[in-house]
Amino acid sequence: MQEVRVFAPATVANVAVGFDILGFAINRPGDEIVARFNPDRKGLRITKITGTGDKKLPTEVEQNTAGVAAQRLLEHLGKAELGIDLEVHKRMPFGSGLGSSAASAAGAVVAVNELLGAPLSRESLLYFSVLGEQVADGSFHADNVAPSLVGGITLIRSNESLDVHKLPVPDGLRVAVVHPEIEILTRDARAVLSKTIELSLAIQQMGSLASFITALHTNDLPLLGRSLHDYVIEPQRKQLIKGFDDVKEAAMSRGALGCSISGAGPSVFALCDSGYLAQAVGQGMQDAFTAHGVSSQLYVSPINQTGVTILSSK
Amino acid sequence: MQEVRVFAPATVANVAVGFDILGFAINRPGDEIVARFNPDRKGLRITKITGTGDKKLPTEVEQNTAGVAAQRLLEHLGKAELGIDLEVHKRMPFGSGLGSSAASAAGAVVAVNELLGAPLSRESLLYFSVLGEQVADGSFHADNVAPSLVGGITLIRSNESLDVHKLPVPDGLRVAVVHPEIEILTRDARAVLSKTIELSLAIQQMGSLASFITALHTNDLPLLGRSLHDYVIEPQRKQLIKGFDDVKEAAMSRGALGCSISGAGPSVFALCDSGYLAQAVGQGMQDAFTAHGVSSQLYVSPINQTGVTILSSK
Repeated sequence: MQEVRVFAPATVANVAVGFDILGFAINRPGDEIVARFNPDRKGLRITKITGTGDKKLPTEVEQNTAGVAAQRLLEHLGKAELGIDLEVHKRMPFGSGLGSSAASAAGAVVAVNELLGAPLSRESLLYFSVLGEQVADGSFHADNVAPSLVGGITLIRSNESLDVHKLPVPDGLRVAVVHPEIEILTRDARAVLSKTIELSLAIQQMGSLASFITALHTNDLPLLGRSLHDYVIEPQRKQLIKGFDDVKEAAMSRGALGCSISGAGPSVFALCDSGYLAQAVGQGMQDAFTAHGVSSQLYVSPINQTGVTILSSK
Repeated sequence: MQEVRVFAPATVANVAVGFDILGFAINRPGDEIVARFNPDRKGLRITKITGTGDKKLPTEVEQNTAGVAAQRLLEHLGKAELGIDLEVHKRMPFGSGLGSSAASAAGAVVAVNELLGAPLSRESLLYFSVLGEQVADGSFHADNVAPSLVGGITLIRSNESLDVHKLPVPDGLRVAVVHPEIEILTRDARAVLSKTIELSLAIQQMGSLASFITALHTNDLPLLGRSLHDYVIEPQRKQLIKGFDDVKEAAMSRGALGCSISGAGPSVFALCDSGYLAQAVGQGMQDAFTAHGVSSQLYVSPINQTGVTILSSK
């Protein structure tokens, strides 16, 4: 094999009830990553980054999420001497709360692993992807990387030990994700958060979380809807998203099961019990952003169950 | 029907990962409640309370958990004029962290409902039992009452709306509960708790909670074991239980899946993957208490799946 091209999906982390522990993948948008042998030189390099618009991502391997993830994998396999060129084609906005850096890291390890004849399982690749994302985010956490890599709705019991579990997805569950053209840096989104929370709120949040997990396991969409409340993080972060209350109201009044901030924002997601409804809900959310003078993109999708897919290999 | 006698089981609330939202019932100990028509007078009264040792429980209906629970039910049914005598036979210690007041409240409503020909379903009785327990505890919460009433492991999404869910119980799950002769009042156990918790600890706790719920739904005892950690409450409350660290160490070193404080304490529970192990674990826990000069009782049980049972009716 000389070249592998993969697609790594965007992800919605936190999911209202699972700050830092829950995430799910959607079908679009996402990143494309190409890994190609280069017999003329040694070591990994990033030869092309496209799709970043007027922003820039570093091409130095050790400063790029895809680069670090792939490099750590190659070192683990004792193949760091191999000449490999990596291309990163951003097909999604970054700083959007849709796990852009996680998608690049997840895509890079799958592309390189596949190029080498797939010596490691998909699950074994998680650690290296998380190391990659750590470059962008500064902390070791898998809530975006895990669903981008393996798909589905993933639960992380412990980021430290990467004890990750893929949860069942109720029939008919669809998601509308609206990305408004507002910029929020993850570190700013972290900075607005209080370091402590009220015990009484934590209890409500834990009731919601446990019920949400139960709803997934029992295919109970009404319970899922009653459970999708963020008592802790959303009230602190929504100030960073112009028009958030109206956007959420637009989603809920149209019949969404729940609506909250995707990851660190500014994207907003709504879960719905059908694709038709998700489309209508998403358009309502866009209209609400427009009324606040904010333009946006809408993505409607089922939960992506496959994670990174291999687009071509030759 | 003239007389109904019921048994209401003791319960373990909080369960390490679900402060105020999780609880389960065990087979023994528990309370016996008798409800009997008295044609010679009107209204409810409590005619006998036994098993309280050198402590006393109020016999005034409006000050007794069983009395209030039964009275509210009778008022709801428009039967408050009926002459009914209630007997409360405590077959369990109170102030033990085993849901003594909840068992009395749950038993009373089932006994009275049955005496009247069972006009209400078991689930419909929950509200009245919680009103009864509120007398003892001061707050409206169902984490002991729900499992005593309906059995199993129960999750409370919201105490306010009593959105309660009975969760699946993994095969082979057994519990050892050790009640040390230490007195802790629920209000004192509440008083030691900080009103706020660190966000970082809340995240770890939520990872454990979500994994515990998943373990129940997927019959995954190893995951259940990895999940049974209380990062928030146990560290604050264990100071009230002499020898707690050694008791927990005794449980874990013998192979318990997890060990923590039952309810507000002082009872300590351990979950195990067999009855033999639960017996050995429980004896080890007792030995550890003894080494600290604390005598104790041991109860080994599966999860009680039935809740309040009717012992006799005539």
